Amino acid sequence: MGKNRIEAFSDGVLAIIITIMVLEMKVPHDANIHALTPLYPIFLSYVLSFIYLGIYWNNHHHMLHACHKVTGAILWANLHLLFWLSLVPFVTGWMGENHFAAAPAAVYGVVLFMAAIAYYILQQCIIASQGADSLLKKAVGGDWKGKLSPVLYVTAIVCAFWSPWISMSLYVFVALIWLVPDRRIERVLLNKES
Amino acid sequence: MGKNRIEAFSDGVLAIIITIMVLEMKVPHDANIHALTPLYPIFLSYVLSFIYLGIYWNNHHHMLHACHKVTGAILWANLHLLFWLSLVPFVTGWMGENHFAAAPAAVYGVVLFMAAIAYYILQQCIIASQGADSLLKKAVGGDWKGKLSPVLYVTAIVCAFWSPWISMSLYVFVALIWLVPDRRIERVLLNKES
Amino acid sequence: MGKNRIEAFSDGVLAIIITIMVLEMKVPHDANIHALTPLYPIFLSYVLSFIYLGIYWNNHHHMLHACHKVTGAILWANLHLLFWLSLVPFVTGWMGENHFAAAPAAVYGVVLFMAAIAYYILQQCIIASQGADSLLKKAVGGDWKGKLSPVLYVTAIVCAFWSPWISMSLYVFVALIWLVPDRRIERVLLNKES
Amino acid sequence: MGKNRIEAFSDGVLAIIITIMVLEMKVPHDANIHALTPLYPIFLSYVLSFIYLGIYWNNHHHMLHACHKVTGAILWANLHLLFWLSLVPFVTGWMGENHFAAAPAAVYGVVLFMAAIAYYILQQCIIASQGADSLLKKAVGGDWKGKLSPVLYVTAIVCAFWSPWISMSLYVFVALIWLVPDRRIERVLLNKES
Repeated sequence: MGKNRIEAFSDGVLAIIITIMVLEMKVPHDANIHALTPLYPIFLSYVLSFIYLGIYWNNHHHMLHACHKVTGAILWANLHLLFWLSLVPFVTGWMGENHFAAAPAAVYGVVLFMAAIAYYILQQCIIASQGADSLLKKAVGGDWKGKLSPVLYVTAIVCAFWSPWISMSLYVFVALIWLVPDRRIERVLLNKES
Repeated sequence: MGKNRIEAFSDGVLAIIITIMVLEMKVPHDANIHALTPLYPIFLSYVLSFIYLGIYWNNHHHMLHACHKVTGAILWANLHLLFWLSLVPFVTGWMGENHFAAAPAAVYGVVLFMAAIAYYILQQCIIASQGADSLLKKAVGGDWKGKLSPVLYVTAIVCAFWSPWISMSLYVFVALIWLVPDRRIERVLLNKES
Repeated sequence: MGKNRIEAFSDGVLAIIITIMVLEMKVPHDANIHALTPLYPIFLSYVLSFIYLGIYWNNHHHMLHACHKVTGAILWANLHLLFWLSLVPFVTGWMGENHFAAAPAAVYGVVLFMAAIAYYILQQCIIASQGADSLLKKAVGGDWKGKLSPVLYVTAIVCAFWSPWISMSLYVFVALIWLVPDRRIERVLLNKES
Repeated sequence: MGKNRIEAFSDGVLAIIITIMVLEMKVPHDANIHALTPLYPIFLSYVLSFIYLGIYWNNHHHMLHACHKVTGAILWANLHLLFWLSLVPFVTGWMGENHFAAAPAAVYGVVLFMAAIAYYILQQCIIASQGADSLLKKAVGGDWKGKLSPVLYVTAIVCAFWSPWISMSLYVFVALIWLVPDRRIERVLLNKES
């Protein structure tokens, strides 16, 4: 009960975050095709953040699918996750406008790191609400992706001051390992239904 | 009947309010990490307002849970509440940009005060629609939080012109007493169902 | 079938329109309370447009309640209505920034007039889809409000070039006669259910 | 299962895209009616893009109606479509501000072309998920509109550097052939139900 509304609110916030990012791509005054050239780093950082937010929406979707009771802790853990994701347009714009400079690349990693921690807390809140034989706990299992990502984010933050391109490669790499949807949850849910 | 749509509309408006606030944090032109330093009061006021809107969404969620019939009065009382909440991004930006100066801190309190009154009116409209043995009336009970908050807001507004930091402490304090979700409603609903 | 989605999309668009209007109220740089004084016409036009959009959401809500089959014509009539309402933030901002000058006050009336026509077309599409004994047709009846409003808007547009304050009074007057929710539809629906 | 949420998220994103486009129409400082004259190309490009997004929402609505199982591929194909549509406000603003100059008119076509390809991919993902006797496959049939549109977009892109007005006519023409809602899907669904 109440699950619909937490989904609707999260969908709304994620839909707005993903869409207002595009407002950072300011319309150039010049009508020449070359007027678009200075926008390419903003465009690339937009693509990266769009994919990250898509991954979060996707996994959030699967995770709430496995959640049947919404507690106060889950509501606040979900708002905490949305808070960090709401900072993505800001850091995306900062990184894009400064052509992936050291400081913005590091701060981008900090926001991704905090969002990953917030996602983990939300996951634990849902598992706690489900008691001893939590369906989600079985589904998540070893959760190597969830454990590897924060480590890679921290590596990327540290590397940013040495070479931001290593950080960027790490952000792209983490996105790639997550692009595969969380089939573990799907599988356990399907097993249970059959 | 129609309850779904009032929830969907309120979720939409709250999701947008909470997200456009972040647009007040203008992307700095400088790529240096120190470029973020001037943004810290805007960030802090964003965090405070995010928590307030989270509390409103949370309690709104619980209150509408206890509401089964949507009348014209409830629709307009809800729009009235959304009106005052829609002013939160404006006062948050004003307060943040001016480092919690006296006037913005006081006006921030005025908006919170009006939102609290609007919330109370909405609550009374729902109770009135439920007749003599209103479930929500029982759930709300003495409602010391709902009565204490406006008093603290008025205190904060008056104190702002003397020391804005007292006002800010009061706003944080009110947020803290509300962060505990409205278990009264949850409890009464559970009792009724069992 | 499909009614849920037309409601969800309309709610989303209306929620965004009502909320982005507040972005026209630019945060003043000055921390003084007098910095808010120049904003009062923008605030007043925001309040007026908020009430108008609230009325549209309210009546849209009641009208779709009486609609059971969504046709292609209804989908496009609905988008047509949303198009004119999406121009409300623009004319509200223009009117507010220019202290209710003649031209903005007239153009504000043009947008309200077109929205009223679009609402009427949507109403006729729903009635047409319901055939001979349309429930909505009975509910709407003489529809004096729907017929009087466009006449008053045209009067307001013409008067704007003579005295914009007559126009503003007419806009406030039309809002007041609509603030009473469309009880006709509620009544007919209730009669049918009993 | 999960179909509701993919619809809700898509509705949210489309509602925001369609509404933030209007923010490109900057409020003029002058109160004179002639202050609106420079805005007419922005207004015209807004109308065109509003209709295109309306067509996408409409057809998306019909297509998901025929989809009963949401796979990971469908989720990502849908996000891919939303990505290209999210660029519509940017190219609309660029085209409008530059009075339908060559480069913006061509880039507008590129975004429409990519959105059409993304829509086709989504359609194929849904058909693939439905197996051999896919309801959507039958409904779509020859799909001459879906095949003609990308050809016309490419023609428009090439023509833009010769005469942007040919491109604009082609965009309007494609919009017109799509304005007729996708009755094929409606018909096949109705046949099956009867």
